[in-house]
Amino acid sequence: MAAIAMPKPSQETLSKRSRIVADLQKIVPGEGVICDEIEMRPYETDAFTAYRQLPLVVVLPETVDQVSRVLKYCYDNDVKVVPRGAGTSLSGGALPLEDGVLLSMMKFNRILEIDLQNRAVVTQPGVTNLGITKAVEADGFYYAPDPSSQIACSIGGNIAENSGGVHSLKYGLTTNNLLGLEIVLITGEVIRLGGKHLDSEAYDLLALLTGSEGLLAVVTEVTVRVLQKPETARAALIGFPTSEQAGKCVADIIGAGIIPGGMELMDKLAIDAAEDFVHAGYPLDVDALMIVELDGPEAEVDDLLERVSTIAEKNGSSYLRVSQSEEERNTFWAGRKAAFPAVGRISPDYLCMDGTIPRAALPQVLQEMQELSEKHGLRVANVFHAGDGNLHPLILYDANQPGELAAAEEFGADILRLCVKVGGVLTGEHGVGIEKRDLMPEMYSEDDLKQQQRVKCAFDEKQLLNPGKMFPVLHRCAELGFMHVHQGQLPFPDIPRF
Amino acid sequence: MAAIAMPKPSQETLSKRSRIVADLQKIVPGEGVICDEIEMRPYETDAFTAYRQLPLVVVLPETVDQVSRVLKYCYDNDVKVVPRGAGTSLSGGALPLEDGVLLSMMKFNRILEIDLQNRAVVTQPGVTNLGITKAVEADGFYYAPDPSSQIACSIGGNIAENSGGVHSLKYGLTTNNLLGLEIVLITGEVIRLGGKHLDSEAYDLLALLTGSEGLLAVVTEVTVRVLQKPETARAALIGFPTSEQAGKCVADIIGAGIIPGGMELMDKLAIDAAEDFVHAGYPLDVDALMIVELDGPEAEVDDLLERVSTIAEKNGSSYLRVSQSEEERNTFWAGRKAAFPAVGRISPDYLCMDGTIPRAALPQVLQEMQELSEKHGLRVANVFHAGDGNLHPLILYDANQPGELAAAEEFGADILRLCVKVGGVLTGEHGVGIEKRDLMPEMYSEDDLKQQQRVKCAFDEKQLLNPGKMFPVLHRCAELGFMHVHQGQLPFPDIPRF
Repeated sequence: MAAIAMPKPSQETLSKRSRIVADLQKIVPGEGVICDEIEMRPYETDAFTAYRQLPLVVVLPETVDQVSRVLKYCYDNDVKVVPRGAGTSLSGGALPLEDGVLLSMMKFNRILEIDLQNRAVVTQPGVTNLGITKAVEADGFYYAPDPSSQIACSIGGNIAENSGGVHSLKYGLTTNNLLGLEIVLITGEVIRLGGKHLDSEAYDLLALLTGSEGLLAVVTEVTVRVLQKPETARAALIGFPTSEQAGKCVADIIGAGIIPGGMELMDKLAIDAAEDFVHAGYPLDVDALMIVELDGPEAEVDDLLERVSTIAEKNGSSYLRVSQSEEERNTFWAGRKAAFPAVGRISPDYLCMDGTIPRAALPQVLQEMQELSEKHGLRVANVFHAGDGNLHPLILYDANQPGELAAAEEFGADILRLCVKVGGVLTGEHGVGIEKRDLMPEMYSEDDLKQQQRVKCAFDEKQLLNPGKMFPVLHRCAELGFMHVHQGQLPFPDIPRF
Repeated sequence: MAAIAMPKPSQETLSKRSRIVADLQKIVPGEGVICDEIEMRPYETDAFTAYRQLPLVVVLPETVDQVSRVLKYCYDNDVKVVPRGAGTSLSGGALPLEDGVLLSMMKFNRILEIDLQNRAVVTQPGVTNLGITKAVEADGFYYAPDPSSQIACSIGGNIAENSGGVHSLKYGLTTNNLLGLEIVLITGEVIRLGGKHLDSEAYDLLALLTGSEGLLAVVTEVTVRVLQKPETARAALIGFPTSEQAGKCVADIIGAGIIPGGMELMDKLAIDAAEDFVHAGYPLDVDALMIVELDGPEAEVDDLLERVSTIAEKNGSSYLRVSQSEEERNTFWAGRKAAFPAVGRISPDYLCMDGTIPRAALPQVLQEMQELSEKHGLRVANVFHAGDGNLHPLILYDANQPGELAAAEEFGADILRLCVKVGGVLTGEHGVGIEKRDLMPEMYSEDDLKQQQRVKCAFDEKQLLNPGKMFPVLHRCAELGFMHVHQGQLPFPDIPRF
């Protein structure tokens, strides 16, 4: 999608900026404040590239004290702040504001402590997800949540989005693997939550912060749980004549009490695209392909593979291949992990959705999605975390064909409404950001949204932290009794540009 | 411990009560309002029996609408409310207030839906913990968190306290097994959180509510995850010459990546008391006894038992016995589960603590606890969830000996300070309630507590829900900037009596 042109900042904005830049340079000296347009250009978007906006100024603090003082300055002077990790958000969570400070946490890039007896790693938030695993893998440990962007995305960003991955089915999302946080409030206060122990008394602010998309506080230190690598991991490719059979098989495997390390589904369009791109050896005569990974002690894995095969046969599977080596297992996954770019090769543009449903509704949703595809006249490729019920339908369109973007967006909104209809939610792991903000009333009643907003006010009464993301900003905290939210229409609303 | 005598209510209180009773009877007709002193007597305490207090009135609503109207009435008329489940709190969480409504949820006693394809049970909050398992066990499922009081405690109370149990090591606390809630705010608004799906967008209020000890809202409907029963479960009794060796063995088992279904430790005093009481066949020539339960497919359980035995031998174990039948496994657990009453037989009184520590600190803490025992001149029996690092030291004393209660309380406070010193917390699963309220500043800085309080205000600005529990009530929400918390001294502070 092309960048959207922005108007030039006004003279008043420019003069306000000069003052703010000068003040921030006193707090973060040297190269920690960037206000040159060319140097700010890399920060104008995240992985949701449909929107671009240069920030007022970029600040890269190096110490907790600097973060605290920057935030207190912004609080005292009513300046908005957008926190940013590696900028890999798929929902525009790190999109800058023209009149806001972009607070990059990427200089917080050190691992502080490895404590394997407590299965804990203490790290700064700018360390990448994979960087944590790299730090402990020599000892046979790893950090479980594994978003596709794990080589680039920061652990701080993972906390903001409550990131998952193909192994979340068994090992949970970020929130299930997080032990502690140090956060800085917009007022500059530094708060510690949790630690290397089970549970904590008091309100569970650790869980509350996870997935809060940068609206409640800025994370300056993270303690995560690491796990020992399973003794064995083997993957099975299982093909089915129809998606419905595959969906039913997923529900049956879980219903039998088996929790695979990962359980993914791809439909015909996704299989063909992935095979053509990476030659993973996928069968081309099936309509749905499941990748099931079982991990644990060898005896257990053998036993589970046997049980999974039996369940698959009962559901009419027509293809089965089990990995015989680590290399083969990686090849099976290579196709799945390259599925998004592979679909990018067969269509000029695509929209990636992220709805989540109770997994028993999988066959129904796959069926209705096909009907929606026909209704909107657009193809959809399905690649998703089946075990979690987390769908990633890719809607194929061509932005150069008049009307196709609008049709794709309407199709996407219909898919999310379908997810909500069957008892699901708008997003599993990509976040709401600006992308799905105006669909929130599909999910939540006015009372629900008001209570969400009251919690926001308990952290950020001036609404300076990442405003305009996740929730519409329609009122001040003092006006909560009079909140009124209009139901949105599209996943890409017209966001206010200030 | 003896009940503490309470002064008679004043004439003004009596007249205010008459008006409130009459108003509540309009909302909850029939026998749903109790104001007779004798009939209210069963509600005057919970399982933390050191304190007793008759409430202003007891209300037993039967519908969500009634709960909503009772709460709105209390909000409009500035009447305090103490929510109550089965009244099994060990920290005084359900202790009534003389000028407050006691809101019993025990008429919400129906299971609403069993949905095994989504591994979910939807239930009302007054259903007992074990009642959920009973409802699904014919299908081979169970609800994992298993507090010792599971036959009596309500699922609503489990949510208030974030209850755990001997299987929390592998299967998590309440928060890890909770999918959704319907709650009523003090203003009467009804809010739904989560559902039968993975994750949700927006702030994670579901996790925030869990463990909030009745201070944020009243739960009217619960959706929990149920699990399929493991194929096999076998338990091993492993004896050690010293507690330090046992503590080291726990850390080594976890460090090897093994997560047993349960891993408990008992020290000499607890072993002797339990064996004398239930004749579980425990060895009497060891100083520490570990019960390790491995569950899963048979092949895996055999493999894990082998590995656990090897680790135990390396740590100098002197006794090993593996259960050969389901009956024998239950006998192993019978001693552990009866350990508290067993200790009650060897001492006129005991205090049960609930500190939690990073498990690698176990040997150090066990050593220092022994030194504290000598310092205070009181015996301590240790029975605890070792794998979780969740200690339950039982401090033995005689309330009829002058000074012993005070010494026991000081010993208890020292133990909790020790837990905090090594990076732990005040409570693993019993809650703060009134018991540990004044120790909160040991854990939390003033900024931490202020932020906790701001979250409370976002739900209950008038502080009408369960005031005086978990946090000192020292200021109104409007005064948050001027909060000042004094550090408490004892686990049983003088709580305000109005």
